Amino acid sequence: MDYKELNKTTVLEYVANVDSVADYFATDELEVVEVGDGNLNYVYKIASLNDSKKALILKQAVPYLRCVGEEFLLSRDRMRFEIRALQKFYSIFPSFVPKVYHANEDMSLVVMEYLDEHIIMRKGLMEGVVYKNFSEHISTYMAATLFYTSLLHISSGEKRALVEKFNGNAELCKLTEDLVFSFPFMEHETNDNENVKENHDAQKLFLDMEFKERVLGLKYKFMTQSDALIHGDLHTGSIMINEKETYVIDPEFAFVGPFGFDIGALLANLANSYVHHSVVTKDEEYKTWLLQTIREVLEKFSEKFLSFWSESKNSALVVDGFLDGAALQKYKEKFVLNILRESVGFAGCKMGRRVYGVAGVAEIRGIKDSKLRRRAESMALSVAKAFVMGYDKIQNCDEVVEIIKNAG
Amino acid sequence: MDYKELNKTTVLEYVANVDSVADYFATDELEVVEVGDGNLNYVYKIASLNDSKKALILKQAVPYLRCVGEEFLLSRDRMRFEIRALQKFYSIFPSFVPKVYHANEDMSLVVMEYLDEHIIMRKGLMEGVVYKNFSEHISTYMAATLFYTSLLHISSGEKRALVEKFNGNAELCKLTEDLVFSFPFMEHETNDNENVKENHDAQKLFLDMEFKERVLGLKYKFMTQSDALIHGDLHTGSIMINEKETYVIDPEFAFVGPFGFDIGALLANLANSYVHHSVVTKDEEYKTWLLQTIREVLEKFSEKFLSFWSESKNSALVVDGFLDGAALQKYKEKFVLNILRESVGFAGCKMGRRVYGVAGVAEIRGIKDSKLRRRAESMALSVAKAFVMGYDKIQNCDEVVEIIKNAG
Repeated sequence: MDYKELNKTTVLEYVANVDSVADYFATDELEVVEVGDGNLNYVYKIASLNDSKKALILKQAVPYLRCVGEEFLLSRDRMRFEIRALQKFYSIFPSFVPKVYHANEDMSLVVMEYLDEHIIMRKGLMEGVVYKNFSEHISTYMAATLFYTSLLHISSGEKRALVEKFNGNAELCKLTEDLVFSFPFMEHETNDNENVKENHDAQKLFLDMEFKERVLGLKYKFMTQSDALIHGDLHTGSIMINEKETYVIDPEFAFVGPFGFDIGALLANLANSYVHHSVVTKDEEYKTWLLQTIREVLEKFSEKFLSFWSESKNSALVVDGFLDGAALQKYKEKFVLNILRESVGFAGCKMGRRVYGVAGVAEIRGIKDSKLRRRAESMALSVAKAFVMGYDKIQNCDEVVEIIKNAG
Repeated sequence: MDYKELNKTTVLEYVANVDSVADYFATDELEVVEVGDGNLNYVYKIASLNDSKKALILKQAVPYLRCVGEEFLLSRDRMRFEIRALQKFYSIFPSFVPKVYHANEDMSLVVMEYLDEHIIMRKGLMEGVVYKNFSEHISTYMAATLFYTSLLHISSGEKRALVEKFNGNAELCKLTEDLVFSFPFMEHETNDNENVKENHDAQKLFLDMEFKERVLGLKYKFMTQSDALIHGDLHTGSIMINEKETYVIDPEFAFVGPFGFDIGALLANLANSYVHHSVVTKDEEYKTWLLQTIREVLEKFSEKFLSFWSESKNSALVVDGFLDGAALQKYKEKFVLNILRESVGFAGCKMGRRVYGVAGVAEIRGIKDSKLRRRAESMALSVAKAFVMGYDKIQNCDEVVEIIKNAG
């Protein structure tokens, strides 16, 4: 099928021919509403007029950056990888991924479950909402998606098939290479240059060669280390949440990359939330919950990853009988500690990039009072620096929490 | 074109329709002789009867392991990757790779330059032949093929295209995973079990969990670290040589893997040759040349790799201006030291696997006197162990040479 950009009217015509969607709505009358932030894609809510509980989302990519205009080209190929990742992650652990009802790579569109009772987690965190189940959910999601797409579980042939499916996601990986690992740490036109100008901290960061050498080491890992299928952009804006449920959305950056990148993205965003509350709300109780959540996410990730591993007796990596029981256990613990370390390293880059780089986060760049904003930036930078400089010496989750706590 | 197994007669019919071959031989009368060891593929020499200097090689893969029989299946896909690698490596540095005149992936065949004045290097080394130009040639070959297929030179998009071209080489990569990194270090039916039985050294090796844990770490790097396009099997049996020229052949194991694997394979095989001469010929002069060659290969590799790097101002990894001159230089030196370290680690696995694993080498397994053979095995194992246990602490090439020298 040739690509065609849909609108509110043609969306209805399109889904009328899709069996799974027709089955879902049966004979209901439907209405279509455009929703979503509209930065990149068109997002439509298709809702039943007969039953207010029944709705699906249709998301279509366009071959340009929508928020800028048709002249700013961005390949709609990204939807190909979003579709494949949604389906793969759902097949591993359906509880935490919206269900796909229909996908069409040629049309760059996907029809999926509508999450009407959930909000973007970043918003909830800024408002100081406590999500009791979050650490349990997200640690399961991360441990499962990473473990079950790695050579600790699948065969080398299956791993190669996975690499083949996502290898083409070059454009979005390049965005991460540039906008996470490079430009935010040097003079660059894409930076928040109003803030960089005559800013002593920014100039100091750009000249900190030891820090930048280590960022380069982490960038190299991002570019060459093919551990598992990762989401690729797992910040708190890619999580839909309420007090009961957690969903991970928008995996268009997915590719076979390093274990630690998703965990690091999440850690960085939770730490940024801690920075925000330290500077803005000064809500000690919430800050304590955030630190506890960070510890739980990391600890539970490790436990669950090891627990999945204990069920896989023979793997592409460890042939059954290669190591004795005690040595295998020791190997596994070192392996998971290494994931924790690399997660901390990536978290450092991710926190650093939010300070002066192109894509600021509401928690920091959104602070209106310039003095407070500077304080938040300086706190975020000090955590980023401690993470990047010390990640490979981290021994346990407590040390990670201590670094964040000591910064503010 | 459908696949068809050729024979001496149909080879002539086939090449009669290939322009590049017809041009090469012009109106000469031709004869076909089957050559090669015949383990895996059919290799034919197509020679001019008018001019004894004019000849080409036609190599065709068959879908089974030829030396065992048609019932032992081995996909002829391997020729697809050999063709692609020959062409890629030739395009980077033609002096050290046989020229391809014609290739046909569907027919699993390649027609290439006939190297009539060269012998397999392993044979020459066993006979004690000195190759004065070897370290210069092979260090250039390795530095060029590795550097120019890495993110230090090509874009991330070009790198992904390279991954796509070689990602399918699953069968041969799996052979390496099993036969280099796993089975030779545990009880396994593929091992040289006559020798393993009641052999104290073998039992000790199989129970050395610290060693095996580190082998597993190197296996993981082999399986997940996509630095550059590597030959994948660069032992001295994959090198055709004389005192003037050096050619690297048989790259059917090629894939995008770790920098250190080819260098490690070569280092292991040169070290095995040193072991052989220490135990069998006791030729001190030759042993000295071998050690000097090892040092030169490693040192010249590093120098040339750095020299290629100095010509690439901007790369996918290091955006121009990201580091200042001094920091960049320091980063590059650390980067190359890390390649050296990983090479030593891989060399340790490669030496270890030759002792009891399925594919023995003439230098050690070929020793008829069982007492001498045991001595050679024990020497090879002690180098393998020192390499694997200490590779990540190596500071320079001298330390590598010292380890080999101290073993015998």
